[in-house]
Amino acid sequence: MTKSVEFTALGGPEVLTIVDRDPTPPGPGEVQVAVKAAGLNRAELLFVAGQYLVDPELPSRLGFEGAGEVLAVGDAVKRVSPGDRVAITPAFKQNGYGVLGEIINIPETALERLPDAVGWPDAAAFWMAFGTAYGLLVQTGGLIEGAGQSVVLNAASSSVGTAAFQIIRAHGGTSIATTRTRDKVEGLKAAGADHVIVTEEEDVLARVMEITANRGFDIALDAVQGEAGETLANAAGFEATMVAYGLLSGAPSMTPFYPMVAKGLRVTGFHVAWSMLDHPKRRAVAVEHLNARLADGTYKPVIDKVFPFEEIQDAYRHMASNAHLGKIVVEVAQ
Amino acid sequence: MTKSVEFTALGGPEVLTIVDRDPTPPGPGEVQVAVKAAGLNRAELLFVAGQYLVDPELPSRLGFEGAGEVLAVGDAVKRVSPGDRVAITPAFKQNGYGVLGEIINIPETALERLPDAVGWPDAAAFWMAFGTAYGLLVQTGGLIEGAGQSVVLNAASSSVGTAAFQIIRAHGGTSIATTRTRDKVEGLKAAGADHVIVTEEEDVLARVMEITANRGFDIALDAVQGEAGETLANAAGFEATMVAYGLLSGAPSMTPFYPMVAKGLRVTGFHVAWSMLDHPKRRAVAVEHLNARLADGTYKPVIDKVFPFEEIQDAYRHMASNAHLGKIVVEVAQ
Repeated sequence: MTKSVEFTALGGPEVLTIVDRDPTPPGPGEVQVAVKAAGLNRAELLFVAGQYLVDPELPSRLGFEGAGEVLAVGDAVKRVSPGDRVAITPAFKQNGYGVLGEIINIPETALERLPDAVGWPDAAAFWMAFGTAYGLLVQTGGLIEGAGQSVVLNAASSSVGTAAFQIIRAHGGTSIATTRTRDKVEGLKAAGADHVIVTEEEDVLARVMEITANRGFDIALDAVQGEAGETLANAAGFEATMVAYGLLSGAPSMTPFYPMVAKGLRVTGFHVAWSMLDHPKRRAVAVEHLNARLADGTYKPVIDKVFPFEEIQDAYRHMASNAHLGKIVVEVAQ
Repeated sequence: MTKSVEFTALGGPEVLTIVDRDPTPPGPGEVQVAVKAAGLNRAELLFVAGQYLVDPELPSRLGFEGAGEVLAVGDAVKRVSPGDRVAITPAFKQNGYGVLGEIINIPETALERLPDAVGWPDAAAFWMAFGTAYGLLVQTGGLIEGAGQSVVLNAASSSVGTAAFQIIRAHGGTSIATTRTRDKVEGLKAAGADHVIVTEEEDVLARVMEITANRGFDIALDAVQGEAGETLANAAGFEATMVAYGLLSGAPSMTPFYPMVAKGLRVTGFHVAWSMLDHPKRRAVAVEHLNARLADGTYKPVIDKVFPFEEIQDAYRHMASNAHLGKIVVEVAQ
């Protein structure tokens, strides 16, 4: 028997239960993995609530990323073998599979081999955050090594935000985080933000202009949209890029017509599944860059807290409270 | 004495008067031109109404583009000499200069030499329309020779729209024009549109998908914004580009969050002054491409109607009525 997380109705963390079932052998193209740790994502809260881009088919499993050891492989699996240490990325149908379980089956396409020295919580916390931040910054936003670009990030205390600080610094750029209140300023700086703007107390436009010597930002990562996105757009530099990847305000922004027309601002979006994981060449470039720096310690995920598997509801409640800074991890098997 | 158009109050075409003044000699960097014809632009109506991106300083002159013969040059002018045939582009301060006059002074930076065979009305109708369309399509939208791209254009009966048909065809692309009513369908096809969608009668999304074999558009030129822009965004293909360059609806669109995130749609803007004329290298590339094709007849402006200078109010009223298709031209001197 093996435990896994399931839900039979849409809702908040309270609908999640841990069920006991016999493990099934991996099907063609599938790999059976003993999960050691899972990283939690805000998208999972939306998925459970029925508000994600993909609807769950009930009863549904849950969990978009993690890390573990390969136990068995199905027909036609070529890239991994039993005993391999792997990261599980979200390159699978979210309404057919879930990472949150002791022993799970997952399509081979979702797996990346792990560098040896990396512990399970770091491995489980790494891929979505750094893969998303790399895709946002380098593959979509146009971050270039040594170009000295300025990057503004809102909702920057997320695991993607804290990963972005490290990637920006490694490329010689300057990160400017925005946060609503003063609470997280020290935490953001400790996590690697070069500058922090407190939006309830400071004028975002004036501060970005001051920090960038009146050039405006080169890249902005917008997880909020709505009015926050509109405010941010006015701080754009010439031919800057603004990448939307979240909708925390609940509504899109108006297109920033004046900055688009007068400054050539480009506005676009990014989703790690559709923009990177579904594109083998982009994915390979990102994996090579990220794995090398995970192995040598250049990149190290900021982990907010590790919960035991049994406290899965509390782990998601902690995420919903927005009090965290970095990745929330669940340890699955002992 | 020389006649020119002036206005001393903001308003519609009725505020425009023709005044008689002594010509002044060109100052440093300025060129004195005997204007032969001027092309009218919607931006001028907005400028006169005080609704343009730049406010007029009253009393103000008017006119953003034209063509004529150089009469005299001021100090430090190097690129043109008396007797040269020149096009006047809008690379000058609109609240300091105006093309609509018999003899005007204009900064040298605004001038491009004309191919020999081109008549005055064509010369006056060419630069804004084809310069804007080239910048929109090639320098901003990513139109590539031979790539077989599909381009959707709304408000396509403008001089920019009809220029775009020719540029798209010359690059091997397919143009899809949208128009509100059936009135302009034949005119648009005659002007070079490969497909025309009548938005009051047809479903824009379904028709674009049908024409593009379900791939969606590669490039869209949006002069309307508002709901029209949002509707258009849903017909985007993978990593398509949508370029906003007008606000005919009066309000920006909401950012198309879903197409941006799921399809990597890029939304940006273009203004011929800031995006091209102010950038000497981009401008030089565009001028070389355009002048060669103006000279050999590949590109030929669609001229809706030529008005005599004295009927300047009627010429702008005709533009405000939206009944035209292509460029409205004013012949200035005999």
